[in-house]
Amino acid sequence: MKIIIDAFGGDNAPLAPLQGAADAIKEYGIEILAVGDIEKMKKVCEKNNISTEGMEFLQADSVFNMEEDPMDIVKKRKDTSLHIALKALADGLGDAVVSAGSTGALLMGATFIVKRIKGVKRATLATIMPCENPNGFMLIDCGANSEVRANMLNQFAVMGSVYMEKVAKRKNPKVALLNNGEEETKGTEMHIEAYKLMKANEKINFIGNIEGRYVLNDIADVVVADGFSGNIALKVSEGVASFITKEMKGMFMTNLKTKIAALLIKKQLKEFKAKMDYTEYGGAPILGVTKGVIKAHGSSNAKAFKNAIRQAKIYAENDISQIIANSIVSGDEE
Amino acid sequence: MKIIIDAFGGDNAPLAPLQGAADAIKEYGIEILAVGDIEKMKKVCEKNNISTEGMEFLQADSVFNMEEDPMDIVKKRKDTSLHIALKALADGLGDAVVSAGSTGALLMGATFIVKRIKGVKRATLATIMPCENPNGFMLIDCGANSEVRANMLNQFAVMGSVYMEKVAKRKNPKVALLNNGEEETKGTEMHIEAYKLMKANEKINFIGNIEGRYVLNDIADVVVADGFSGNIALKVSEGVASFITKEMKGMFMTNLKTKIAALLIKKQLKEFKAKMDYTEYGGAPILGVTKGVIKAHGSSNAKAFKNAIRQAKIYAENDISQIIANSIVSGDEE
Repeated sequence: MKIIIDAFGGDNAPLAPLQGAADAIKEYGIEILAVGDIEKMKKVCEKNNISTEGMEFLQADSVFNMEEDPMDIVKKRKDTSLHIALKALADGLGDAVVSAGSTGALLMGATFIVKRIKGVKRATLATIMPCENPNGFMLIDCGANSEVRANMLNQFAVMGSVYMEKVAKRKNPKVALLNNGEEETKGTEMHIEAYKLMKANEKINFIGNIEGRYVLNDIADVVVADGFSGNIALKVSEGVASFITKEMKGMFMTNLKTKIAALLIKKQLKEFKAKMDYTEYGGAPILGVTKGVIKAHGSSNAKAFKNAIRQAKIYAENDISQIIANSIVSGDEE
Repeated sequence: MKIIIDAFGGDNAPLAPLQGAADAIKEYGIEILAVGDIEKMKKVCEKNNISTEGMEFLQADSVFNMEEDPMDIVKKRKDTSLHIALKALADGLGDAVVSAGSTGALLMGATFIVKRIKGVKRATLATIMPCENPNGFMLIDCGANSEVRANMLNQFAVMGSVYMEKVAKRKNPKVALLNNGEEETKGTEMHIEAYKLMKANEKINFIGNIEGRYVLNDIADVVVADGFSGNIALKVSEGVASFITKEMKGMFMTNLKTKIAALLIKKQLKEFKAKMDYTEYGGAPILGVTKGVIKAHGSSNAKAFKNAIRQAKIYAENDISQIIANSIVSGDEE
């Protein structure tokens, strides 16, 4: 099992990806193909005492920037670590890719370099969000496709369900549709149509619509959304959590009494922080493409990167793309 | 100034509306027209020592239930306190209406009984949400119109702006469009078109797109959204706040040490709770109709109801509907 990493994607590259990769080699017994400026990578490893055992390197002369047009990853920017990593995956030099680089470019590259699974209408980005269930829930799509049709949501449901069952080991995962009410007549025409398709879809355990109010309540394992409102749901929840955290910090810093309170509850606060920490949940899988592509958070540290590599490994081991291909081809075509 | 209340709408009716109304009469020097079963209302006032000075009553034989089809408010259910309250407003028996009843029915009733302002394409529901600014920000539309066109969002922007300037006394309110990125090319075709219209609109202080991540950061006074993603934003933020509150309660109840911590920080926790409390922010205005219609939260207590009545009073005093009518008619027509 060999995982390809884009060693120059993300805020903490190349140190965090390389450190995470070395830790992953040790912990999971895998091999790594690290893509980027080889000289720089070797220097960083040497300087930081990062073992390169089990690690191969592949040269890329440049880095894809966050500000660039995602579409450019396919043809214009073939010299970037992101393009070369995805090309290496397409060419069979490894089993899955992990990158903390531009989400848009990764999605474009996954779609057009690694390529969509036959029958899949749109590749999609899913994320695991913290909730009452200590293992979180999946939000799919969380921002890749702003404009979708009902049959795409129905495919997202199947892909999310397969992933949560095989990678996150959730049995018979409960699938819900994010909507503005619980009744099946709620939402736009598109949502009403998606409800019908999902209800009739025997490959998923559809439990109906879910309102934004309840997504964190461990009701659904997979919450299906159009990419626009999925993005709103994800970002608003991050914003609210950050707002409350900031307010709490202010509270605890008010005076001597509150500072003592902070000391007394330190352990629990730390545990809570860990629960809300994205690094514990690993990366966001791009689903609907022929091989495993995992987007690590842009600000990933070594641990987050290692966790994303673990996800990539499980994805490849279980041949998730093949299972999705089978699920899609055997019935979802119109 | 006479405010009409639907005394039988909401979870705590008729006690909370009547108590809130009596408090509002005392505090704001207004009159109240309370609509509902007169005998029952009088009994509740007597039993709870609620003064009926400044209060008139108008008979309604039944109550509109949350489960009923909102459309029925217009013709089928003319005997309900909600219909009769809105009819009384349309007939000039009072200056504004407050109800904690069915949001959908209130919106339908406002649109078809009180009637839309000429030129307004859709009446909309706005809400004030807690954020870093202690007075909150407005989210418009927060759930009334799932499917909208760009010119409707542009009208929401104007209406929200007028309301925040005149009722919430926010000077030259900053207006932003809820979107999945900051660039003007973000979102669906509809959002891109809405961005252009709002940018060209001289009646508003448009500051561009805002991501869900930043809505609580006191960047915009008015956040414009289509009703679908507005509903998702509102409900997800309620869900996350409720989730974190629950987790915090658990933390503080863990053991003796954490219980002492809770005591030490009690005052600050209470203040924070008040900040997040919807009752402090009053009700949600329905904008785009010819007179003031305020939706109080379904679970409003007397205080929330009193605050909603205060909003209704300021709305009527400032003739907000007329200002909106002038803003819309003088340029937004295609």
